[in-house]
Amino acid sequence: MSGEDAPAQQQNAVDQKQETKPTEEPKTEPPKTESPPAAAAEAAATPAATTEKVPEEETFTYRALVLTGYGGYDKVKLQVKKGKPTLKAGEVLVRVKACGLNFADLMARQGLYDRLPSPPVTPGMECSGVVEAVGEDVTDRKVGDKVMVLNRFGLWQEVAVVPANHTFLIPEGMSFEEAAALPVNYITAYMMLFDFGNLRPNQSVLVHAAAGGVGIAATQLCKTVKDVTVFGTASASKHETITQVGVTHAIDYRTKDYVEEVRKISPKGLDIILDPLGGSDTHKAYNLLKPMGKLITYGAANMLAGQKKNLLAVAKNWYHQFSIHTLSLIQGNKSVCGFHLGYLDGETELITEAMNTILDFYKEGKIKPRIDSTWHLEQVGDAMRKMQERNNIGKVILTTEPMPEEEKKEETKKEDKKEDKKKEDKKKDDKKKDDAKKEEKKDDKKKEEPKKEEKKEEEKKEEPKKEEK
Amino acid sequence: MSGEDAPAQQQNAVDQKQETKPTEEPKTEPPKTESPPAAAAEAAATPAATTEKVPEEETFTYRALVLTGYGGYDKVKLQVKKGKPTLKAGEVLVRVKACGLNFADLMARQGLYDRLPSPPVTPGMECSGVVEAVGEDVTDRKVGDKVMVLNRFGLWQEVAVVPANHTFLIPEGMSFEEAAALPVNYITAYMMLFDFGNLRPNQSVLVHAAAGGVGIAATQLCKTVKDVTVFGTASASKHETITQVGVTHAIDYRTKDYVEEVRKISPKGLDIILDPLGGSDTHKAYNLLKPMGKLITYGAANMLAGQKKNLLAVAKNWYHQFSIHTLSLIQGNKSVCGFHLGYLDGETELITEAMNTILDFYKEGKIKPRIDSTWHLEQVGDAMRKMQERNNIGKVILTTEPMPEEEKKEETKKEDKKEDKKKEDKKKDDKKKDDAKKEEKKDDKKKEEPKKEEKKEEEKKEEPKKEEK
Repeated sequence: MSGEDAPAQQQNAVDQKQETKPTEEPKTEPPKTESPPAAAAEAAATPAATTEKVPEEETFTYRALVLTGYGGYDKVKLQVKKGKPTLKAGEVLVRVKACGLNFADLMARQGLYDRLPSPPVTPGMECSGVVEAVGEDVTDRKVGDKVMVLNRFGLWQEVAVVPANHTFLIPEGMSFEEAAALPVNYITAYMMLFDFGNLRPNQSVLVHAAAGGVGIAATQLCKTVKDVTVFGTASASKHETITQVGVTHAIDYRTKDYVEEVRKISPKGLDIILDPLGGSDTHKAYNLLKPMGKLITYGAANMLAGQKKNLLAVAKNWYHQFSIHTLSLIQGNKSVCGFHLGYLDGETELITEAMNTILDFYKEGKIKPRIDSTWHLEQVGDAMRKMQERNNIGKVILTTEPMPEEEKKEETKKEDKKEDKKKEDKKKDDKKKDDAKKEEKKDDKKKEEPKKEEKKEEEKKEEPKKEEK
Repeated sequence: MSGEDAPAQQQNAVDQKQETKPTEEPKTEPPKTESPPAAAAEAAATPAATTEKVPEEETFTYRALVLTGYGGYDKVKLQVKKGKPTLKAGEVLVRVKACGLNFADLMARQGLYDRLPSPPVTPGMECSGVVEAVGEDVTDRKVGDKVMVLNRFGLWQEVAVVPANHTFLIPEGMSFEEAAALPVNYITAYMMLFDFGNLRPNQSVLVHAAAGGVGIAATQLCKTVKDVTVFGTASASKHETITQVGVTHAIDYRTKDYVEEVRKISPKGLDIILDPLGGSDTHKAYNLLKPMGKLITYGAANMLAGQKKNLLAVAKNWYHQFSIHTLSLIQGNKSVCGFHLGYLDGETELITEAMNTILDFYKEGKIKPRIDSTWHLEQVGDAMRKMQERNNIGKVILTTEPMPEEEKKEETKKEDKKEDKKKEDKKKDDKKKDDAKKEEKKDDKKKEEPKKEEKKEEEKKEEPKKEEK
């Protein structure tokens, strides 16, 4: 795979303040390896530090996925990095076993996620693995601990250095895949439902993309509360699975108007709506809230039009984002919340508290991450595609296990076909752009006063039976 | 007092659907009293019903405050109504002892509250009293029960007919004044803090107008949760009282910038902000939220510019109301909620649940309504003025106790002075209009992107010590 020969910096786990500083290289003599001159010079320029284990420091290599520029699936490349990363106080070095894929990673690849530093950079917000070294002042983690990790970025590689308080001990019986599938989706779902949502018994919740990572986490977490009704949208082929997970009413958003479907069953509307869609769906969600209802928007999946960044589409989407007037909130007794775990990385206490509760649920058998599929690092493009095209049910996982040689050969064959695939993608993208344009036109028409929409909803509400006929 | 001789309809407690129907008159022969022809014709036109207790039905009179048109304090007049109101199934007749004043009543008087039917109408959302008669199907209330009442309107009178499920039994030891002070303020504060706010131990809350009815209720309710820090704004003369009630940090909003004061103590911002002000204060509140913070706006006190309705000011205020984009919410991990009890009147279950908890707090000695002052029905204008000019600490109450003759004479003297007072008010109104215009100009300048404001806040945050010097 191209780029394997280029050494790259370890993208250390950093907090926001460290974002602009260059990350530290292992402090050795200038490498005697095949490093290109620029990297060697940079390494030499950094202040000297621990230099005892010279041989290991030099010979230490690990594979890392690197986002080399914004764009399509091929922008994430597998590279080999050299030199063992050093540890600062409070940090641990984790030998990564499995990594989770998230929508933020897909958006980051397209340059739509400002929490990822500029390329070249290693993406990845969550992983699982084994602690291989601990820095000074780390008292609650030791070498050999199995941990899951939550970090702003930099976890899609075999070796990751992170603050110890970004790691959580993996409970007995949880696989590395499950552990890599848990942090982002479950903390996101938990904080939305239990902090903003204040979910209580007998309430009703709408979960969009109920077969996705957050969707499944949210459904399982809803079921930890007595008599909660879960409405879940997904394409029909996924209904059996999401119903097994806990969805009370599965709705095929491709063939039915989910607003109408919800009103048939719950004419007064809903207590909580989790909205990953944005745009006009946020308007619909707002109108579908009961008094004291909470709309929690947590991303803008509708923005992910094609696999490449489309600035015009993004700009239009921003423009069409839901905006709400406080007087409407007051008269409706409604709440609108926004959530993104990626912007919460300073809130260690909140996150740890949420994680502890989630792990208790796991130990009690109340939740269990569902793995859709596991991919080798070499297959990251296909893994991203599966998620971006919404073909997954549950979590898409990367494993750092070496790929068997036979599979590698298969991959090479696939590579040959990739040119064809690219052309196909191009066509799809073009189609999506057209669709997006059509959708925007529709949205323009729809952009009327929310009150009008509410009135329509009320009319619908009064005559649901007529419509059923 | 003018208007005492004009009979008026009982403004029965009604739900929204009944709003446009004429309320029922006692069904008797055409009254032989001094009723003007129009009222008599109306009474005669209604269908006949129970006519046994003819004498009582006819001779039954009671005093009622009636909003005769939108405008200043003098638009609420004391009138005498005739004829005993009839009870429908599920209703009770309450002999009213005390009534609470609320901001919604003040706004209603100015025509700014759409939950009050058009004048002539009796305002009043809460009262306390004794059940004097029960309708069919009422099983949980009996004659003699002491109750507090929450209703959309119609409670500022000696006799009120309301649905039984709008009444709550007054606990042992609670006075009628306290009972009339409790429903609106405590349910409002409770639902904001514990439903939308999801208040938990160690959190921080900003309570504006901490000496007002909702302010005192909110402060007391905050103190039912462990280690909650309450920031309360009020003019300096009220600080001693609000501190006694439970405010941790009292801030004089007239002489200090409350945002700066909060940042000095809590640089990261706040978990919950209760915002009754609207306009630019909502922007400030939004920027003052911590991640996962909740802004709960519950009225628009800034709209109450003068004692009379000022359409231009209202329109401008609407325009300047806070409006928020979901992407800003997402990146900030914030929540914006709107609350108004007046729009929740269909939610009997939610309200009853809240009330039960509040009454438990009362019985445990954790909360206690604070009465600012009690006024006779004849003094309703002065009572409203005291509240509207923010001279109260706690609740302003009306009592239906007859006014002693001596005081009445005093009132008459005051009446003579009212012409002077009116002129004075006119001056004040004009001054306020000027101030409002100035404020609007300021607001126009301030109407920049919230992000800019956030940046400023961040700058402030970084150098709080410099500013302190």
